[in-house]
Amino acid sequence: MTTPLDNHRQRLDEVDAQMLNLLRERNSLSAKILEAKITAGLPVFVPEREQSKVANFRLAAADLGLDPEWAEDFLRLIMSSSRDRQSRTEFPQCPGGARTVLMVGGGGQLGRCYGRAFAASGHTVRVLETGDWDRIAELLDGVDAAIVTVPIRVTAEVIARLAPHLAAGTVLADFTSHKAAPLQAMLAAHRGPVLGLHPMHGPDVANLSKQLIISCPGREAAASIWLLEQFRLWGLRVQELEPEHHDRIMHQVQGLRHFVALLHGSFMRASNLTPGDILDLSSPIYRAELMMTGRIFAQNAELYADIVFADEDRRALLLQFLDHHQRIAALVREDDKAGFIREFEAIGEFFGEFAEQARTESSYLIHRLADRFA
Amino acid sequence: MTTPLDNHRQRLDEVDAQMLNLLRERNSLSAKILEAKITAGLPVFVPEREQSKVANFRLAAADLGLDPEWAEDFLRLIMSSSRDRQSRTEFPQCPGGARTVLMVGGGGQLGRCYGRAFAASGHTVRVLETGDWDRIAELLDGVDAAIVTVPIRVTAEVIARLAPHLAAGTVLADFTSHKAAPLQAMLAAHRGPVLGLHPMHGPDVANLSKQLIISCPGREAAASIWLLEQFRLWGLRVQELEPEHHDRIMHQVQGLRHFVALLHGSFMRASNLTPGDILDLSSPIYRAELMMTGRIFAQNAELYADIVFADEDRRALLLQFLDHHQRIAALVREDDKAGFIREFEAIGEFFGEFAEQARTESSYLIHRLADRFA
Repeated sequence: MTTPLDNHRQRLDEVDAQMLNLLRERNSLSAKILEAKITAGLPVFVPEREQSKVANFRLAAADLGLDPEWAEDFLRLIMSSSRDRQSRTEFPQCPGGARTVLMVGGGGQLGRCYGRAFAASGHTVRVLETGDWDRIAELLDGVDAAIVTVPIRVTAEVIARLAPHLAAGTVLADFTSHKAAPLQAMLAAHRGPVLGLHPMHGPDVANLSKQLIISCPGREAAASIWLLEQFRLWGLRVQELEPEHHDRIMHQVQGLRHFVALLHGSFMRASNLTPGDILDLSSPIYRAELMMTGRIFAQNAELYADIVFADEDRRALLLQFLDHHQRIAALVREDDKAGFIREFEAIGEFFGEFAEQARTESSYLIHRLADRFA
Repeated sequence: MTTPLDNHRQRLDEVDAQMLNLLRERNSLSAKILEAKITAGLPVFVPEREQSKVANFRLAAADLGLDPEWAEDFLRLIMSSSRDRQSRTEFPQCPGGARTVLMVGGGGQLGRCYGRAFAASGHTVRVLETGDWDRIAELLDGVDAAIVTVPIRVTAEVIARLAPHLAAGTVLADFTSHKAAPLQAMLAAHRGPVLGLHPMHGPDVANLSKQLIISCPGREAAASIWLLEQFRLWGLRVQELEPEHHDRIMHQVQGLRHFVALLHGSFMRASNLTPGDILDLSSPIYRAELMMTGRIFAQNAELYADIVFADEDRRALLLQFLDHHQRIAALVREDDKAGFIREFEAIGEFFGEFAEQARTESSYLIHRLADRFA
């Protein structure tokens, strides 16, 4: 005997099956659109086009009585499915034809990630690893750009060793997470075109579309135009910055963040409080923060030590940060709740409208987390 | 003249329109299923049923060549749309018929959130606010449960004032984020059934389905069964805990987290580094962390001071945390990279398999963030 509940559930399953079929068709259409773009030499990701698509979709959803906010999430999720798919196919090539690129340290994760992208756009990719220096002349023969992507502690050394072998017309670039010092090292060692780069994403992204890369022009910017154009065709957002400004922010964004994670993890260990104890009792927001801390310790200790102990400036900033804590410690020690409230409100004022933006954006995040992991 | 690219794009728009129509039908089916559940007195959210639905959907997606991971995200997103819709309709009612509930401090955000849910299940909801104490006898007349949901600094005071007016059979419960002290206060002041509760979510959730609530039985647990059963029918996950264990974890989960956010915000202000400076240069993961910090300062300073300065134990923990920093500060001051690596690896070992879980789970989060906010 079937109940009305059974009938509704059955129709729901049919609706879901129809949606899967539409998704499959959508992915195949996206692949065809990509192919047509490559043939026409058009960029893979055009922000304005996506914005207008999103705006129209929101309107159509509202017409059907669906929440436009929710509908935007939905559209972005289905668009991300076709973007992920793009990573498996070919990419468009920058104007002026195929180039030859040498990835110096190309066996590392980030080097491999970009090496695959260059190859997918039809460029010739060569890799120089620690054991390859005796083949340096052969590897550099006819190279249009040499990109140094090695750990930060050996960047300067590798640049000094590589540069004397470069032809005058070869672009020398680096992927280091600092920009001032490597740029100086490249300018001093190479007389030709120089470009500082910092990909602001991990090597595990499904593809480069929508990711951010920082560029710091060093010398003969015209010689690197093809490279930046290639990045844009992959969908990367290229942002030009002064190297000193980049480094100042990075001390906070990278150095401080990883340092705070270490403080947190180290204290949990000292208190013998396991992640399992906490997870059972976590709201989605705390769970997210614990995951952000935890992920760091699944990675290489030396890599993180390089980031935290990058240079004198960064260490000075971290010590300032710890000194600053003493002011706050005094509030807690003296049970000075009024002082805490004054400090809290001063920060709120300093943050201004950002605090409200953060509330909206993090609420989105928290709801997605609750859907997925509760 | 239309190109193949134009044709594909047109078909893509048609596919998206069809999906919107299916979504509308799906929402209307979900509403009918909910109605049928309410009629039959069945719970709104059944974890096992959802798990089996997800497993089948993953298989169906894989059959069509779609990524099952991605397909699960998709399904959870469309299911969340129908759950959000449920918040606007009626909820099932616990066995034994409609009760009368008094929300003490019911004008606050969390009180209103639960008040709405009780009302949606057909219970009578009354609210006691600061100005209502002269009507206390009338408000408590025939009340089955009185739930104290006031700021933590006045919880004990409100319990002491309320309890003498309660009938012996009325359940006295509280929503405070501490459990040991309020539970003692309730047991001392009221001779009837007592239940400590802690909803582990903010008041801004679309509905209670899938959220976590902690329960700490105090006295005459049988008298509160209907209340916990009602929570489950709303889809809440009810977890029973010892009050002392709850409080120990909460010092870390709530106290420390908000404290670290203050340290971070306070240092940004002292360094005159604005969120805008940083956001331009943020990877999705750092952006998420900055949003988690920023959201706090959009909220009430006094509320956060109450959380951080909750009691002696919590303040002691925060001071221990700051003291612990001195050990790490020494590593930085002495440029002791090897010591840093040892500490890092010890934390990794302490975290064990969790670090890998955190990497997977946070990667999901980061990709969703990149889709939505890049």
